[in-house]
Amino acid sequence: MVTPVVDIHAHFFPRITRGQGAMLGSAGPWLRDDGDGTGQLMVGGDEYRPVEASLWDPAVRVAQMDVHGIDIQIVSATPLLFGYGTDPVVARSWARLVNDLALEMCDDYPDRLRPLCQVPLQDVDRACAEASRSVAAGHVGVHVGTQVSGRNLDDPELERFLHHCAEEGIPVLVHPWEPVGADRMSHHMLQWIVGMPAETHLAILSLILSGAFERLPRELRLCFAHGGGSFSAQLGRADNAWHRRDLVRADCPDPPSHYTDRFSVDSAVFDDDALRLLVSVMGSERVMLGSDTPFPLGEEHPGKLVRGSAFLDDRQRGTVLGGNAIQFFDL
Amino acid sequence: MVTPVVDIHAHFFPRITRGQGAMLGSAGPWLRDDGDGTGQLMVGGDEYRPVEASLWDPAVRVAQMDVHGIDIQIVSATPLLFGYGTDPVVARSWARLVNDLALEMCDDYPDRLRPLCQVPLQDVDRACAEASRSVAAGHVGVHVGTQVSGRNLDDPELERFLHHCAEEGIPVLVHPWEPVGADRMSHHMLQWIVGMPAETHLAILSLILSGAFERLPRELRLCFAHGGGSFSAQLGRADNAWHRRDLVRADCPDPPSHYTDRFSVDSAVFDDDALRLLVSVMGSERVMLGSDTPFPLGEEHPGKLVRGSAFLDDRQRGTVLGGNAIQFFDL
Repeated sequence: MVTPVVDIHAHFFPRITRGQGAMLGSAGPWLRDDGDGTGQLMVGGDEYRPVEASLWDPAVRVAQMDVHGIDIQIVSATPLLFGYGTDPVVARSWARLVNDLALEMCDDYPDRLRPLCQVPLQDVDRACAEASRSVAAGHVGVHVGTQVSGRNLDDPELERFLHHCAEEGIPVLVHPWEPVGADRMSHHMLQWIVGMPAETHLAILSLILSGAFERLPRELRLCFAHGGGSFSAQLGRADNAWHRRDLVRADCPDPPSHYTDRFSVDSAVFDDDALRLLVSVMGSERVMLGSDTPFPLGEEHPGKLVRGSAFLDDRQRGTVLGGNAIQFFDL
Repeated sequence: MVTPVVDIHAHFFPRITRGQGAMLGSAGPWLRDDGDGTGQLMVGGDEYRPVEASLWDPAVRVAQMDVHGIDIQIVSATPLLFGYGTDPVVARSWARLVNDLALEMCDDYPDRLRPLCQVPLQDVDRACAEASRSVAAGHVGVHVGTQVSGRNLDDPELERFLHHCAEEGIPVLVHPWEPVGADRMSHHMLQWIVGMPAETHLAILSLILSGAFERLPRELRLCFAHGGGSFSAQLGRADNAWHRRDLVRADCPDPPSHYTDRFSVDSAVFDDDALRLLVSVMGSERVMLGSDTPFPLGEEHPGKLVRGSAFLDDRQRGTVLGGNAIQFFDL
């Protein structure tokens, strides 16, 4: 039997009305379906990003997956929907709305589309409850941002959420959110191009250098989007700093490279050399196909980079294309 | 004749007294020499970083170069000395002080130590004048930060400075300075480990995406520290974004990878896989040995990474170890 091809990083945006979006305030996110296969992500009355119907229409999405040879997509909401800045009670209702719409969207294609839930991470008790409720209802894991109101992943409350996921066996996909340095990146989408890889790099190193992996169970299934951002290419810099400065290693007993077996990354790095370095650093068993589709900054041809990478042997390629994801998400 | 080995990224901190440091205010930087081969970088009354005598003593420095097989060092002041936040008239006097002390430090070893000047970049007329004065006095180029008061390198005034350097044939080494995201990186030296590679990435892409390379003369000799930060490993992401979003390519007629022949980088990436990717992206003729010595986050054994990299052939290795630098700095 051939291993299915699984894309673990693919976004959706459910048909949220302007009225529903207003739960997050006057600039709440909603979807304007222009009826011609295109639409706009809206924030209040403003256009935020042009989008296409595959973002919300499961039939269009599955037809595109067929074109690209993707058997299963793990779908996660657009991070714009996280709602981490909202009152926790409202954010819980909001997460339930998004999560229930996600199940509904995947319902007609149970073998093709599997959703990740989102949670009100600003309130960890409610976040744990919503993660557990969602997984019981059919979600295959949880999708979280790299930070909440400027608190990195090593924040004790956020670490507590990761403990909950480890204990309950809930896989976690971490996506950059409100990336560092936005004040210096106001044009040319630099927040996405420069900010996001830095943000994810910060998330991983915050966990490592704070010693969080010494406390978190090894069973935690944790994956970082966009190949873990700049982490892999900068790992030599981090290791060198750890060896040479007491400040760096104060809370972390082993060099950063020691911890690469504690998390996975997706393959959305858009370049064969970068993918080669990623597989060299993480090992082929810790890289999973992720395309960031259907957003324009995702892969135009999901899976093409991994399929065409000459440095992977057939076993490694099968593992990256689907084998790892099947284990990670218990598919 | 064997090509000399040139380390193009090595810092010094001249014997600045507390009184001199006060030119930059009550937290002005100065050097406390503890007389036992160690000392402290001080900011006002506070210890900033423990340091060793090679930072200010040229005899100790040259002895260490002998140990590591480095023939020539291009030395640049610690970025802490930039003084970009100071009144321009004071900053000009400050730059003159630092630059004259640099010449004095290198004076006994004219074949081994060659200094880069610094300039009051907050005032581009004065910066141009100080760069020209310094080069006439013996400096082999200019060392600048990635930003001035939050203005990226594509700021029209900073671009004007680069035009001046191109016209006068002054090589420019760009070093990360006050990196993005400091508010999220208060511990474990994350500003150095995560912030600096992001800062340099931002500097390069700011120049590229703003179209600055379309306006700057091809003759400009520009080099970025720390292997250009996260630029090379994230170039696929930038190219993909350029191809797929009008916002990204609005001011830049070619994809980012088109511009890799317009600048060089140093080799301070601390990992063989990362160096391999760097050479693949930039070409061996655009990577120059840089160790970031003698700071602890620099190479412990300057040159060892490049010398030991099995993927470089002898010609490439010689080029990276010294040939490129001899051309770049007209040594």
